[in-house]
Amino acid sequence: MIDQKLFTPGPLSTSRTVKEAMLRDVGSRDAAFIETVRDIRRRLLVLAGVEPDTYTAVLMQGSGTFALESVVGSVLPRDGRLLVLVNGAYGERMARIAAVLGIEHEVMRFPEHRTLDPAEVDARLAEDATITHVASVHCETTSGILNPAERIGAVVKKHGRCSIVDAMSSFGSIPIDFEAAGVDFLVSSANKCIEGVPGFSFVIAQHERLLEAKSWARSLSLDLYAQWHGLESNGQFRFTPPTHALLAFHQALVELDQEGGVDGRAARYRANHEALLAGMEAMGFVAYLDPELQSFIITSFRYPLDPRFDFEDFYRWLSDRDLVIYPGKLTDADCFRIGTIGRIDRDDVRRLVEAVRDYVGERAISLSPT
Amino acid sequence: MIDQKLFTPGPLSTSRTVKEAMLRDVGSRDAAFIETVRDIRRRLLVLAGVEPDTYTAVLMQGSGTFALESVVGSVLPRDGRLLVLVNGAYGERMARIAAVLGIEHEVMRFPEHRTLDPAEVDARLAEDATITHVASVHCETTSGILNPAERIGAVVKKHGRCSIVDAMSSFGSIPIDFEAAGVDFLVSSANKCIEGVPGFSFVIAQHERLLEAKSWARSLSLDLYAQWHGLESNGQFRFTPPTHALLAFHQALVELDQEGGVDGRAARYRANHEALLAGMEAMGFVAYLDPELQSFIITSFRYPLDPRFDFEDFYRWLSDRDLVIYPGKLTDADCFRIGTIGRIDRDDVRRLVEAVRDYVGERAISLSPT
Repeated sequence: MIDQKLFTPGPLSTSRTVKEAMLRDVGSRDAAFIETVRDIRRRLLVLAGVEPDTYTAVLMQGSGTFALESVVGSVLPRDGRLLVLVNGAYGERMARIAAVLGIEHEVMRFPEHRTLDPAEVDARLAEDATITHVASVHCETTSGILNPAERIGAVVKKHGRCSIVDAMSSFGSIPIDFEAAGVDFLVSSANKCIEGVPGFSFVIAQHERLLEAKSWARSLSLDLYAQWHGLESNGQFRFTPPTHALLAFHQALVELDQEGGVDGRAARYRANHEALLAGMEAMGFVAYLDPELQSFIITSFRYPLDPRFDFEDFYRWLSDRDLVIYPGKLTDADCFRIGTIGRIDRDDVRRLVEAVRDYVGERAISLSPT
Repeated sequence: MIDQKLFTPGPLSTSRTVKEAMLRDVGSRDAAFIETVRDIRRRLLVLAGVEPDTYTAVLMQGSGTFALESVVGSVLPRDGRLLVLVNGAYGERMARIAAVLGIEHEVMRFPEHRTLDPAEVDARLAEDATITHVASVHCETTSGILNPAERIGAVVKKHGRCSIVDAMSSFGSIPIDFEAAGVDFLVSSANKCIEGVPGFSFVIAQHERLLEAKSWARSLSLDLYAQWHGLESNGQFRFTPPTHALLAFHQALVELDQEGGVDGRAARYRANHEALLAGMEAMGFVAYLDPELQSFIITSFRYPLDPRFDFEDFYRWLSDRDLVIYPGKLTDADCFRIGTIGRIDRDDVRRLVEAVRDYVGERAISLSPT
């Protein structure tokens, strides 16, 4: 059976060699596996551009949301108060986590087609000293917008608050300056820009901030401090790790290096995105975001105005050709999304664009901007 | 690189074909994958011997502990009270989950070498009507003891309480009569007797009990009701699923059928266990448990009395030969453990026993019972 090509925000396409790394069973307490986990954690810090005496990497079973919940649920003290900056569904999700966990929080909402505004955050933090933590999303895949992590982070830092960054879909291809952005906790996932398979996620944690969080967790499974403590004390996970996904991730980190690290990967993704945008716009599709706000991670395109356009039919037609795109998630516009990350290249994107062109022709959909 | 043979409680050895099922990337929202997930859930109910109008299967990202926490944290109402029956570390873990989540609970402890006692549970439930839920472990891998799930369940049912069963290491090879055991929620994991790879776990839930639990969850990620609702409404996971591990699990379920289902698998595991026990006892090793309490899942052996025996050395020596055993976990005796589940057969066990014999000879360890 052939692989589907996944033009989504994840699960993403991965290399054959990454998948082949899973053709082994290893004991989770065995020395070789423990060394693999240690090397994964070391490589994540190198990738983040941070020093191991200041930051540490914690791996967490489950999807990215599990790691986000482990951060929000572990690092907010009982008298903490979280400000969540929202311009899409993933910001809303962090607020939802806080709500379910009974954590004091407030939400500052921005339009989905606008980036988070550091000036407004500055003003809010200046007037409310009870806010202890600020959470934001780096690349909000709801739209594909890239938020100004460094400028937001500088404001949070200026006010001495703790900064939580959801960099799920950006880490590994869009650099964050941890110093400038004053990042205390950054969350990402195995199956995003590092191109591992899904099954776990990870947190790059500022060491001192993490130590403070001892015994603050609201969960046993999602206790970030305890998870770190387990990994540090004997190199083992507290609970059964997804050994195969970890072997794949280690291979994925090696392949990221071979591609030239973050810069090399960014170059491929940028080329993917440019090929996509050029091809789609040439046909008459309209991107949702202003070009200067658009990341190369994922792009939202507005539905054609032609009433003959039916997303479900479009999706199935492409999927039957093993090309998988993604539905929209915006509240204020009908869009579909096409991701340009994962193990895909410009030729794959061109093949997708050609298929879209065939579809539009076959269904006689008008793309003129009336 | 060759596979290690894993004589552990998990991660376990899996078949080559189960691992090869992971050599594909699939979209988590795509029709074929959704159908795979649907078929997994259907097969789990068949395996449990229950009807889909009475029970439902919920898959949860993360290790078995994550699914256990999702049950304890989702199905106990705010005024609920949990009785946890404990004769080993996994019973203790359920009590720990309740403690961290701030759930009212009490612990009834039994010695690690004795099964849970239905008569004592009966008496306790008769005298305390505030207990709403009872949690127990089927096969307690701390020792390898098999608890009388049906007899415990009958008592819980007689008193009209809700029954939570941790069948992590038994489900798929030791049948539980759901009717007799009055099971409301049974938890197991992908990487135990079904012989998938680790990465998710699952819950067989009594339908009406699950519906009651709407909005009771203390977590977003580990919300059992919401997870079920997502899977039912559109066949999708709420948050990125471990697609590769799910493809492997589907293949593992097919292979379980091919082996003759629960009976066929039990026969192989029993033969593994018998070969192990015969070989080890012939050398002079002493099993911790009385034979009539011992499951064929995992066996605890007492350390030899000879002070030359050093478990770390023993472990490494075997591991260097790609034979992985497990440390003990008992509080009242120094033991090591050897698991006999996963994709291993009698020949693998005999190879292990021969290696143990070589080790004992090489280190000149006396096994006579002084």
